[in-house]
Amino acid sequence: MAKDILYLKIAKAVAKQIQSGTLQFGDRLPSLRSAQKLYNVSLNTVKQAYMELESLSLVESKPKFGYFVSQTSQRKLALPSISTINISEKEKMDEDLLKKVFDTISKPDITQFALGIPGDNFLPLAKMKKSIINVAKNKKDSGTAYEPVQGNEHLRREIAKWTLVLEGKITEDDLVITSGAMNAIYNCLMAVTKPGDSVAVESPVYFGILQAIQLLGLKAVEIPTHPVYGVDLDALKKVLPTISACCFVTDFNNPLGFQMPDENKKELVRLITEFNVPLIEDDIYGNVYFGSERPKPCKYYDEAGLVMWVNSVTKVLAPGYRIGWVAPGKFKDKIIRQKLIQTVCSPSFYSDVIADFLEHGRYDHHLKSFRQKLYGNYLQIQRAINTYFPDNTKMSEPKGGFMLWLELDKKICTEELYNEALSRKINFAPGRMFSQHNQFQNCMRLNYALEWTDRVESDIETLGKMIKNRM
Amino acid sequence: MAKDILYLKIAKAVAKQIQSGTLQFGDRLPSLRSAQKLYNVSLNTVKQAYMELESLSLVESKPKFGYFVSQTSQRKLALPSISTINISEKEKMDEDLLKKVFDTISKPDITQFALGIPGDNFLPLAKMKKSIINVAKNKKDSGTAYEPVQGNEHLRREIAKWTLVLEGKITEDDLVITSGAMNAIYNCLMAVTKPGDSVAVESPVYFGILQAIQLLGLKAVEIPTHPVYGVDLDALKKVLPTISACCFVTDFNNPLGFQMPDENKKELVRLITEFNVPLIEDDIYGNVYFGSERPKPCKYYDEAGLVMWVNSVTKVLAPGYRIGWVAPGKFKDKIIRQKLIQTVCSPSFYSDVIADFLEHGRYDHHLKSFRQKLYGNYLQIQRAINTYFPDNTKMSEPKGGFMLWLELDKKICTEELYNEALSRKINFAPGRMFSQHNQFQNCMRLNYALEWTDRVESDIETLGKMIKNRM
Repeated sequence: MAKDILYLKIAKAVAKQIQSGTLQFGDRLPSLRSAQKLYNVSLNTVKQAYMELESLSLVESKPKFGYFVSQTSQRKLALPSISTINISEKEKMDEDLLKKVFDTISKPDITQFALGIPGDNFLPLAKMKKSIINVAKNKKDSGTAYEPVQGNEHLRREIAKWTLVLEGKITEDDLVITSGAMNAIYNCLMAVTKPGDSVAVESPVYFGILQAIQLLGLKAVEIPTHPVYGVDLDALKKVLPTISACCFVTDFNNPLGFQMPDENKKELVRLITEFNVPLIEDDIYGNVYFGSERPKPCKYYDEAGLVMWVNSVTKVLAPGYRIGWVAPGKFKDKIIRQKLIQTVCSPSFYSDVIADFLEHGRYDHHLKSFRQKLYGNYLQIQRAINTYFPDNTKMSEPKGGFMLWLELDKKICTEELYNEALSRKINFAPGRMFSQHNQFQNCMRLNYALEWTDRVESDIETLGKMIKNRM
Repeated sequence: MAKDILYLKIAKAVAKQIQSGTLQFGDRLPSLRSAQKLYNVSLNTVKQAYMELESLSLVESKPKFGYFVSQTSQRKLALPSISTINISEKEKMDEDLLKKVFDTISKPDITQFALGIPGDNFLPLAKMKKSIINVAKNKKDSGTAYEPVQGNEHLRREIAKWTLVLEGKITEDDLVITSGAMNAIYNCLMAVTKPGDSVAVESPVYFGILQAIQLLGLKAVEIPTHPVYGVDLDALKKVLPTISACCFVTDFNNPLGFQMPDENKKELVRLITEFNVPLIEDDIYGNVYFGSERPKPCKYYDEAGLVMWVNSVTKVLAPGYRIGWVAPGKFKDKIIRQKLIQTVCSPSFYSDVIADFLEHGRYDHHLKSFRQKLYGNYLQIQRAINTYFPDNTKMSEPKGGFMLWLELDKKICTEELYNEALSRKINFAPGRMFSQHNQFQNCMRLNYALEWTDRVESDIETLGKMIKNRM
């Protein structure tokens, strides 16, 4: 029996046990070595079988602990399809769509499923207030002085100390403070390209990245992306000789929610190093993991200084502060120069407040409760979609982050649905925003990092009804 | 006798009276009508004579009050020459020069003549602190929420109310908040050009503008600029058909200090309207006038929505807050879209602090004392240069703003002088930074908005000695 059929046979057997309820959520699968003996096959065949189960979201691996039956193994909804990019359909997106979605940014009466903004109940508002007042009292210059162009030294030091995931690979001198992560991405793109160049992105791609690429006169090359494994490395390899940069959200991807496996990250870094193509790694959701530990970013595997690692406090602490940072590898001087020209420096006051937060361990403490609360919300929205949406809805399985990606019946156009939803004060991100091509019209992205109230529950129900009515 | 010789004759007669001491600093010249009778000539001839005297800096006009003998009429130093741009000398500027100058930005032990940063004693630090704490206490969200992309509504309303100089021509809806004035200029340039386009600038030109132009892949066209009247409109007219934008500092120019006369502003707006070329008007020094009232910016004369009027609180209130704004005329939507892509929105907290300041009239109160103090410093530095610098030094005559422009003996290279000065902890801006061409090597710009201490006085003396030693 051919090897590739053998591993599928084993996977099928385990899947059956899960479907029948013999194996239940949280149960541990036999270890690789036990399974090897059990099925009398090679270790590699067992590995392949377990990875197949993982790709079906029936099991999940916990490093050092083995494979477990996943919470979503009994999910009734399928995973979204892998995008097949159809470049011929170059219908232009309505520019107003982005504007409409963002015009709701500061309207409190709208349920904010569209934008990746955490609800107030997720943020340590009282502690922040205390920090602000403390910093204000102690700051002799009342925040009026300029900072070094590279960014507040105290903040850079605290970020470097706090970034344990990189195991000391960056110091304060490797970091540049930016006006949020989007500003870092914009400047990274500017530093490594010239107008007319091409940049590889995921598909679907976060619309902020797409917009930055277009603003800079660049071309986006959308690479097919798997809802569990991330960007298709074979497809990427083919275009690498023709592009100037990659820009990916490798962990808790926006919008698909996947965590790129370590092996894929290593291979990605190997590839970009071989072709000498910089990778802008948007890692802003990296600390919002649902698993046992924070995944290593690609930056961790980077020896050539080609990975520009982007992070911020926007998603989990203070969106309105606009504090982000980048470890731009060998492009640091260029980034600093661009920052000088564009804005001279960052506002100093907020930098001190965030540095204070980091220094006293308050940030890690906050992150812990943030993740717990967010995971609770994820289970809520998953349940609500299961309950209220049509059965042929396909749903992503985020391993962290804020975003759920839904693929609806082909007949549904979420851009049309959008206006009706907004009139009912429900805001979501239509799938069309996530591509330069005319695709994902039947998709939507939902942010679940908001306070889970009866109103939110009923808004999901409303959305579900609206969709069913159109089918 | 030809008319043009007649007015020069009258000007000469008055100049003689000033030189002999018959007319002294502060004396009022005969009114236009009295002089018309006195010399028995047309009103226009008298006007021309008085304008000639003004261009020689012997008299100054105070709107509604007439012409007065100027404080600098007895100055021993000449005005700087009008630049003659030699495009053939395209020697590249040392990129490190800009970096060296800015690396001193947060070093308190260096006398900061180089950058346009007000000294601490110029800023209302205690009042700012109070405002910060008040805003922090009252802000429910601790500044964590996003603001509208266009900018904080409260701040925009207060700016619109406070901008009396435009006589109600702008409302809160016409303004976009930016990360300081440089960010506004950068975005204005981006909004009205594409890579490869040309932009007209003054000569010498503020290096920030030059850098932004280069970063965006644009070409700067340096227009000869008069140290009293500003950009040469005839020279500008010749290039207008070939350029995509103008970017000028019309009031209290950086670095020359002039206030462009009203007539020239009107003509400038007429010209750009005729050729449909947008004007980016950097007016950040507009409120720092030494005369009797704030000059009208070009924006005041703009009917076509072509003038993009840029302002900020950086120069007089809080450099480190990075709060600027632009009234971008008909390019508003484009600017807002760019801002969304680059930074999403501005930090909210500082916006509230500045809005609070404006709302309670504290800003105007502060500006009044700021101007008095600054004018005192201007007299100090003028005296010090007169005392310690060689007699063949040419010196600008700023009508407001922070900057003094010096043209030294042809033998002096201020780029070489710079390193020696910096080793003595004196920072100034070498003239070479103010052009893309290899010129102004014998010039320097000095910021006098710093606390006038014995150290500062002795630093000017040191600079003077260094220059004399090299001659």
